[in-house]
Amino acid sequence: MSNTIGTRFQVTTFGESHGSAVGAIVDGCPSRLPLSAADIQPQLDRRRPGQSALTTSRGERDQVRILSGVDQGLTLGSPIALVVDNTDSRSADYQAIQAIPRPSHADLTYRLKYGLTAASGGGRASARETIGRVVAGAVAEKFLTVKYGMQIVAWVSAVGERDAPDLTGEIMTRDQVDATAVRCPHAPTAREMAALIEAAKKDGDSVGGIIACVCRNVPPGWGEPVFDKLSALLARAMLSIPAAKGFEIGAGFAGARGRGSEQNDVFVLKAGHLGTRTNRSGGIQGGISNGEPLVFRVAFKPTATIAREQETVDYEGRPVKLRAPGRHDPCVLPRAVPIVEAMAALVLADAALCHIPPVA
Amino acid sequence: MSNTIGTRFQVTTFGESHGSAVGAIVDGCPSRLPLSAADIQPQLDRRRPGQSALTTSRGERDQVRILSGVDQGLTLGSPIALVVDNTDSRSADYQAIQAIPRPSHADLTYRLKYGLTAASGGGRASARETIGRVVAGAVAEKFLTVKYGMQIVAWVSAVGERDAPDLTGEIMTRDQVDATAVRCPHAPTAREMAALIEAAKKDGDSVGGIIACVCRNVPPGWGEPVFDKLSALLARAMLSIPAAKGFEIGAGFAGARGRGSEQNDVFVLKAGHLGTRTNRSGGIQGGISNGEPLVFRVAFKPTATIAREQETVDYEGRPVKLRAPGRHDPCVLPRAVPIVEAMAALVLADAALCHIPPVA
Amino acid sequence: MSNTIGTRFQVTTFGESHGSAVGAIVDGCPSRLPLSAADIQPQLDRRRPGQSALTTSRGERDQVRILSGVDQGLTLGSPIALVVDNTDSRSADYQAIQAIPRPSHADLTYRLKYGLTAASGGGRASARETIGRVVAGAVAEKFLTVKYGMQIVAWVSAVGERDAPDLTGEIMTRDQVDATAVRCPHAPTAREMAALIEAAKKDGDSVGGIIACVCRNVPPGWGEPVFDKLSALLARAMLSIPAAKGFEIGAGFAGARGRGSEQNDVFVLKAGHLGTRTNRSGGIQGGISNGEPLVFRVAFKPTATIAREQETVDYEGRPVKLRAPGRHDPCVLPRAVPIVEAMAALVLADAALCHIPPVA
Amino acid sequence: MSNTIGTRFQVTTFGESHGSAVGAIVDGCPSRLPLSAADIQPQLDRRRPGQSALTTSRGERDQVRILSGVDQGLTLGSPIALVVDNTDSRSADYQAIQAIPRPSHADLTYRLKYGLTAASGGGRASARETIGRVVAGAVAEKFLTVKYGMQIVAWVSAVGERDAPDLTGEIMTRDQVDATAVRCPHAPTAREMAALIEAAKKDGDSVGGIIACVCRNVPPGWGEPVFDKLSALLARAMLSIPAAKGFEIGAGFAGARGRGSEQNDVFVLKAGHLGTRTNRSGGIQGGISNGEPLVFRVAFKPTATIAREQETVDYEGRPVKLRAPGRHDPCVLPRAVPIVEAMAALVLADAALCHIPPVA
Repeated sequence: MSNTIGTRFQVTTFGESHGSAVGAIVDGCPSRLPLSAADIQPQLDRRRPGQSALTTSRGERDQVRILSGVDQGLTLGSPIALVVDNTDSRSADYQAIQAIPRPSHADLTYRLKYGLTAASGGGRASARETIGRVVAGAVAEKFLTVKYGMQIVAWVSAVGERDAPDLTGEIMTRDQVDATAVRCPHAPTAREMAALIEAAKKDGDSVGGIIACVCRNVPPGWGEPVFDKLSALLARAMLSIPAAKGFEIGAGFAGARGRGSEQNDVFVLKAGHLGTRTNRSGGIQGGISNGEPLVFRVAFKPTATIAREQETVDYEGRPVKLRAPGRHDPCVLPRAVPIVEAMAALVLADAALCHIPPVA
Repeated sequence: MSNTIGTRFQVTTFGESHGSAVGAIVDGCPSRLPLSAADIQPQLDRRRPGQSALTTSRGERDQVRILSGVDQGLTLGSPIALVVDNTDSRSADYQAIQAIPRPSHADLTYRLKYGLTAASGGGRASARETIGRVVAGAVAEKFLTVKYGMQIVAWVSAVGERDAPDLTGEIMTRDQVDATAVRCPHAPTAREMAALIEAAKKDGDSVGGIIACVCRNVPPGWGEPVFDKLSALLARAMLSIPAAKGFEIGAGFAGARGRGSEQNDVFVLKAGHLGTRTNRSGGIQGGISNGEPLVFRVAFKPTATIAREQETVDYEGRPVKLRAPGRHDPCVLPRAVPIVEAMAALVLADAALCHIPPVA
Repeated sequence: MSNTIGTRFQVTTFGESHGSAVGAIVDGCPSRLPLSAADIQPQLDRRRPGQSALTTSRGERDQVRILSGVDQGLTLGSPIALVVDNTDSRSADYQAIQAIPRPSHADLTYRLKYGLTAASGGGRASARETIGRVVAGAVAEKFLTVKYGMQIVAWVSAVGERDAPDLTGEIMTRDQVDATAVRCPHAPTAREMAALIEAAKKDGDSVGGIIACVCRNVPPGWGEPVFDKLSALLARAMLSIPAAKGFEIGAGFAGARGRGSEQNDVFVLKAGHLGTRTNRSGGIQGGISNGEPLVFRVAFKPTATIAREQETVDYEGRPVKLRAPGRHDPCVLPRAVPIVEAMAALVLADAALCHIPPVA
Repeated sequence: MSNTIGTRFQVTTFGESHGSAVGAIVDGCPSRLPLSAADIQPQLDRRRPGQSALTTSRGERDQVRILSGVDQGLTLGSPIALVVDNTDSRSADYQAIQAIPRPSHADLTYRLKYGLTAASGGGRASARETIGRVVAGAVAEKFLTVKYGMQIVAWVSAVGERDAPDLTGEIMTRDQVDATAVRCPHAPTAREMAALIEAAKKDGDSVGGIIACVCRNVPPGWGEPVFDKLSALLARAMLSIPAAKGFEIGAGFAGARGRGSEQNDVFVLKAGHLGTRTNRSGGIQGGISNGEPLVFRVAFKPTATIAREQETVDYEGRPVKLRAPGRHDPCVLPRAVPIVEAMAALVLADAALCHIPPVA
């Protein structure tokens, strides 16, 4: 099931950048959910390249079409097929590098796994693969919003060495996040991040960073206690995003440095139910949501494809100097924000449907 | 499938600390693998409490029994049922806290999810749940060793603020790791770590840390390129371990701070095949193993159950002062080492069987 | 997942006849279901050999033990491990036939699949494998009874050429079924069936037959419309029983002979809801339960292991005359009745949990 | 996973008759398989309505498009998205019956399950759903043919009370099957079957029947011994076809009437390996293929939608006389032949990839 995620709210994505379309099938979405392309297009637009000078300027114009599963504005309970046509075939750009595996890219591993030798190798490692995630995630998010009033908001919390202040305790909106091209809602930091990205671009280089994500109004009791801990499923979903190299929930790696007496979240009475005074657990205890906001972070490596010359070898092992052709994002972080939100929505919609209530 | 991991090498664990046994069913292990309890017991012994002054001193003596799936020293291809009896029922210890949810423990979330009000709540959140992982992981490791010559070695790389030097580039053995009670193969650091743990214990407190793990001789081509990236499956497996709060592969969070030109792993010719000069990718590119060692780290929070008094509330929301009864590990890291290895083995054995080779 | 059935109410069975135990893990059973061994033992006893002169007289005394998942008489929501010890090792009986694959048995196919050459080959093809089904099925049935008031009753409707009248339209009880050793609730037919079985036994031969099963109080809306039609899942579950060779729902094969105007189930108003005047659909339309009783039949071939001499070849292809040693059921049908009921319960408990209701 | 079949060669279908397209995603097909639309279109054409006077005359012209997963004539190992546009929207026809559930159709059960009240109800119960099966099945068949030389041929073996002679022991080709419109390769029987269908059509009625299917060159060792017996997976796949009501493998229901000494398949030496003298097992023993041809039969009820007036009730329970509008197949059997073949191919391609060989 390499291209499917979820066991109940189940999403299968398809499509290579050189083919005719990319997309996703959403199976398991409950019937009678109001849904139209207008619910999906905004996140697709946020993912689009060329939104600012900070991202690649290729003129993709992605439009989602719903082929099935919706009638008269309501989901039918049948599979929702979502398709986005590929309009900008760029195989010419890639022909130059057919003889050379790009460092830290998937060219070599695809060849080893699939026995493919042409430009089509690595097709699913293209950034366009994430379109299927985003359109399916928008359906999941619509379900979570309508049914549970959930809010999922991610933003860029670090670019290179520059960190934004911790904003996970405040209620952020996507408008606040989108107020800067770099998608960091802390304006002074955003300016510095933009400068870092511009500098990398100027050098033909790239830069990595960290995305923070908060999910509010997650009902308690979601997630399963052993292998399907909600935190484990989020970790898997996030590490499945291209270029993701790390994940932490709540206090994460920093919390591992502390003592129990400092890190524990003691309980307090909140509006009729038990909550926690702090949220170092990130909203999950024993793998199960506790009603506090989910808080997690995802680390992304710098874009592997860079214009700067790299000394490497070709498939025959002969030393070559590689200068990647084409236009590339010097920093994937801003565009990865809606992808992180999509993956969170997919995990949570599935967790919603996976929960088995007591007999009575 | 909350208690099952893997789609081909498939493991289901069972058992609560207050029941009569814990264990696992391994389904999908190939036939004709030499296997006996002697292959499993060593990792179970490494996981056992009371191995040193640094760990809890409860006198558990866990012995694995193989109920099925093996005959005359060979696996049959049928499910391997592994059972470890519970000999030390400790429910009395826990009665005192039935009215109070322990901070940062799963008591409250289990109650919310399962509607249970007794000591049995949270049974699967017990440390004994990890026995099923360790015994099943030992079977997976035997398969990986016999078939691929794989070596999986983990160790404690940080306790609290104290980090060991990066040893992931060197070949470590379990003997080297076990040379110190804290399971850090860098002796000077190990002494400081032990001191940190002793200090926490003395204060009735606990301390967290980080485990590093390296898997050598992983064939290239394992892992699936989208949702089942090998890195994603490792992340999920590691975050499913009790108290795990973070995961990173290769350069991870630190790598997110760098530039592409510094972080990329350029290719070099190695003994007849392409390898990478550096291994910041941690052995995985595009989700697929590239033949270099897998390198990852897991962050563990400090043990939630501490002897120090905590100001919290009971299930009715009434303020109480809680001092957890019983004996508890001030630091789970040394005992978590074989659990990390077991989870890595489970992911890799599954990836081995999931790989679909080209038609020709 | 060769040894697992169900995606939500998920059962994994284990154990060979020559090992130390057989059993099952039930994962996904909702918490707070009253459950004890006393709920499981009766069906295990009905499956037991040696209940009458018609069945094999081996003195097995199977007792189920619950290792996990239940505390203080209630399910915990965690895996329920059920174990039945093997007390009667019969490997000696089988040594004689190690060189000869028994006709229409699994000896040869196991050898071809697993590469095994010893008596252990075919261990999962032993009748004892069905113990795991029966104990897990009893848990499923308890859930269905408590939550939905469901009633599942199967009986022997044909032995050889002798058919009982169609009793699927009447409400049958297990007491009525168990009133005769052959488990046919129509006494005159039961006597003739018993005579057929006795005659086969006397000839060292065996005889097949058909089991009918009716499930009452199945809520409408269960089952999924495409590949997981309730009828499809029942067919799979029934054909997975050893010796099962056919399945039909409702009018089945006979209905295929008729015309639409005769076979259609027209609707009528019943106590406030729509029902069907007839039930040729067997309670399922478009793969989804319609509120009428589920009615299906399963065909079992005659027992393959017979005392009569058979002219066959050994593994080397040399002609031999085989006379199977040991004691064997001349007719598996009476003992298969609780197995059919168990498999129906497993399918229905899973369907109950798989159903996704509309958003609103 | 209601719209997905297979765990390794995994197919998800989508689409309603009133939407814009139907199709399937094939995930798990090995890379480097030669594949083009020309491999798929023939079976799609065989499934098409209006091929003869015996089938409905609606002018559908279905053309498959491959959106992804294939490049330069070879599969990539990534998901193969197959789409067939809907060109003939027929919702007008169905408006008349929105207030009345059609007897033995899925209208009522869909309403009960999904809470839908419009024409869209039952969309997945449309015959167009089977297009996804056929196009995916053609990919599976290509894999099985190229890799194993497999041959899968089905035909109509009975219409109403008229049975063809048993031809499962002879090698049949699709050309022989397609020689008659009714797709029965026994010409004299085919003529009588055609007469039966014509007579039913004239009466505004419909007629059911039986399809036989034989799969040759199935390697031994496929199928799993317990719940995933090859026979069980075939039964599920066949019962998932609309209107299917029964399944039998090998001697099936008739074999249940016999004695073991008559029904057993004794072994003989065939060209260097063990085979069976007879094939009453239908190529499967203990759930595992034995190298003999797979032989099974599927019973289909008469088409539920008939022109003849039926006395039934509307959704409010008011008595009505229903005469279904539109044009309907008086007999689905001829068009179901490629669907049976497709489902067999899907099961076998999955079994091929599910088999786990011994360690050594």
